[in-house]
Amino acid sequence: MNTTNEPLSVERMPGAPLIITKHSASFWRVTLDNPPINLMGPDMVAGLQRLMDIIEADTQLKVIVFDSVNKDYFVSHFDVVRGGELPQVSGKLGVTQWVDVSNRIHNAGVISIAVIRGRVRGIGSEMILACDMRFASKENAVFGHLEVGMGLLPGGGAAEYLPALSGYARAMEIAVGADDFSAEIAEKYGWINRAFSDAELDAYVDNLATRISGFELPALQATKQTMLKRIGGGPNPFEIQESSNKFFELYQRPEAQALLAKLMEIGFQTESDTESRLGHYLGTLATK
Amino acid sequence: MNTTNEPLSVERMPGAPLIITKHSASFWRVTLDNPPINLMGPDMVAGLQRLMDIIEADTQLKVIVFDSVNKDYFVSHFDVVRGGELPQVSGKLGVTQWVDVSNRIHNAGVISIAVIRGRVRGIGSEMILACDMRFASKENAVFGHLEVGMGLLPGGGAAEYLPALSGYARAMEIAVGADDFSAEIAEKYGWINRAFSDAELDAYVDNLATRISGFELPALQATKQTMLKRIGGGPNPFEIQESSNKFFELYQRPEAQALLAKLMEIGFQTESDTESRLGHYLGTLATK
Amino acid sequence: MNTTNEPLSVERMPGAPLIITKHSASFWRVTLDNPPINLMGPDMVAGLQRLMDIIEADTQLKVIVFDSVNKDYFVSHFDVVRGGELPQVSGKLGVTQWVDVSNRIHNAGVISIAVIRGRVRGIGSEMILACDMRFASKENAVFGHLEVGMGLLPGGGAAEYLPALSGYARAMEIAVGADDFSAEIAEKYGWINRAFSDAELDAYVDNLATRISGFELPALQATKQTMLKRIGGGPNPFEIQESSNKFFELYQRPEAQALLAKLMEIGFQTESDTESRLGHYLGTLATK
Repeated sequence: MNTTNEPLSVERMPGAPLIITKHSASFWRVTLDNPPINLMGPDMVAGLQRLMDIIEADTQLKVIVFDSVNKDYFVSHFDVVRGGELPQVSGKLGVTQWVDVSNRIHNAGVISIAVIRGRVRGIGSEMILACDMRFASKENAVFGHLEVGMGLLPGGGAAEYLPALSGYARAMEIAVGADDFSAEIAEKYGWINRAFSDAELDAYVDNLATRISGFELPALQATKQTMLKRIGGGPNPFEIQESSNKFFELYQRPEAQALLAKLMEIGFQTESDTESRLGHYLGTLATK
Repeated sequence: MNTTNEPLSVERMPGAPLIITKHSASFWRVTLDNPPINLMGPDMVAGLQRLMDIIEADTQLKVIVFDSVNKDYFVSHFDVVRGGELPQVSGKLGVTQWVDVSNRIHNAGVISIAVIRGRVRGIGSEMILACDMRFASKENAVFGHLEVGMGLLPGGGAAEYLPALSGYARAMEIAVGADDFSAEIAEKYGWINRAFSDAELDAYVDNLATRISGFELPALQATKQTMLKRIGGGPNPFEIQESSNKFFELYQRPEAQALLAKLMEIGFQTESDTESRLGHYLGTLATK
Repeated sequence: MNTTNEPLSVERMPGAPLIITKHSASFWRVTLDNPPINLMGPDMVAGLQRLMDIIEADTQLKVIVFDSVNKDYFVSHFDVVRGGELPQVSGKLGVTQWVDVSNRIHNAGVISIAVIRGRVRGIGSEMILACDMRFASKENAVFGHLEVGMGLLPGGGAAEYLPALSGYARAMEIAVGADDFSAEIAEKYGWINRAFSDAELDAYVDNLATRISGFELPALQATKQTMLKRIGGGPNPFEIQESSNKFFELYQRPEAQALLAKLMEIGFQTESDTESRLGHYLGTLATK
């Protein structure tokens, strides 16, 4: 098996901005495709939830790689316009749909790897943090938790995942600075496993995923279970829910709505320089 | 607001070696100024405690930057000559004054950032570790926990803060090796967020602090509260107190007093080559 | 005292592949010497257990450095052929012999430092992880947890030590990727304290160990005790035992036995290209 070979199948999930490529029965690729800037909206969250249903029911799958069609945006951020459409209770734990998705990626019996090109901010960063591993392009990846700059807080897992990986001080710099970071700094801070030059990134990840897909499932599962147990299970979904509730509490304040309205006026949620250099624009908005 | 603009006020705290510069109502700078080598003595600890009273009572302040007038010594170390003057019970928790100060910096509603040039050792390192973030000059900063070389242990927070940031192995290397480390290694070990060239350091920190000062207080506070909660509140002041008690227990032994007496003979606590290269001199003392 | 001076004594432990060099009463070196590839077999594990008896009974020793005669293999891995000879209950805790050894190195009153040249895989990595600190040669050290590639899991401490040092994501990459890593990546991931050029490695470690050997024992012990307490004691031996039991459960499956048989056919456990590039060969075996 080799990712340069013809895949078994390439299919778009009906009604969802996700393309599922089956390189083999044990190695799938899930490609995010929500033009123009890969916003994480209701269709993508619902699609990821259905994906987890499929993955959890599959008995041969060992490893899944997440990437994006758009090389400028892995995931821009949460779709604040359509965010209200997301189900408030979803899945077996009685949590909101995103918290259910995040928790199921993290605890899946399969190994998950994110490959990042382009901007990955807010809920996009929280999605890759729920994966077992993350690798990014040195030239093209940009990382940000910009919520505080919009009067909000990182409420979809970052407060739970990041401090354990980067330490409290670097998680605070990321969160309260609300600025964009390079892949090199993301690597230094443990936000990602490693940054590779764009030309080397796919070779590393494809080789890693291909190895994993050839190893024995009982060994992979026992290892992941043991590692998860040793970190106390990882983030507690009810703690992520608590942060998420705080996010929506801050979101409903007139001050946050006013900030978001100003951002919408200058191109937020569209293919624009504002989205491209969002960290910069938030600084300008805050300090002028 | 910009740090190149005229500040609102620059005032020395009465009776304390601290200069408070108010860049704006929401961004203050606190500059340590205890010549000749910025020893952390009773006046500085008491001044920092009064500073925390002021900060906790202020409703507009969002971010505070700690730096030093002396570019060779951010804080040399604890003043062992005058250390006995420090109050043994101070503040609401019934802990000693330094433990109260450290705990209140860590849990303050404002964001704290340390900018380090020069030597920062012992209690100086413990002061910057209590801050939310730390940045240092590549050319000029020197980091050390040299207590073990004096027959003591790092007892003012290092044992509580460092392992969570650097991991146990690197915290042990720092503590039992009792030697000086460069800013580059301090960054590698997570002791600081990042090392910058001296020419770039202020620009990075001023931009970061200015951004924070322009963001919304409810967003900043919810983020800090959530992050602190997710790391279990951070170091427990009663554990720091326990380490501090152990420090004074070791300090009272004749062996430690003899080591300190030898150090005093060669220039300890004065502007001297001994203070400049203290890690080196402790090695010489231990191995001759 | 200086490591370039004549040591007090150099002795091979009777019946064990260990050479004990006493540089001074307070600084010993333990050199692993089990030709041709430093397999960790019953004699080495039993020797290390006896070493811990000696160390725990000594009242002057402060620091111990572990290294290897063989510059290509610090420790290749667990001897799967003779592994069955290891006592199942050993030491005061009622755990298996390896878990007893690992736990006693970690909790010893002396400071332990590993200096790594050559390959260190599986139980070898778990031995250095039980030490207080680890330093390696940039040119010559190779790190691997290849158990998953053999249908097993890292069961002698890696699942307990690694995530706390490297974070969950990098521990997972190491464990489920089952590939070899350079010293540079091992440093980046916190697997080791630091990688040095081969020419600088011994100077750094000898200076560090010599300093420690000259510092006061009460200060060293209070520091190690406090640091250990602050990380919750470090890995729980009964959790390592649980992982170890899982290792042997997976080991007994016919699938794992078949993989090991294939490896034995191509030179596993001998001085061979298979051992030299074991990570590579496991990938080939898994993906062909």
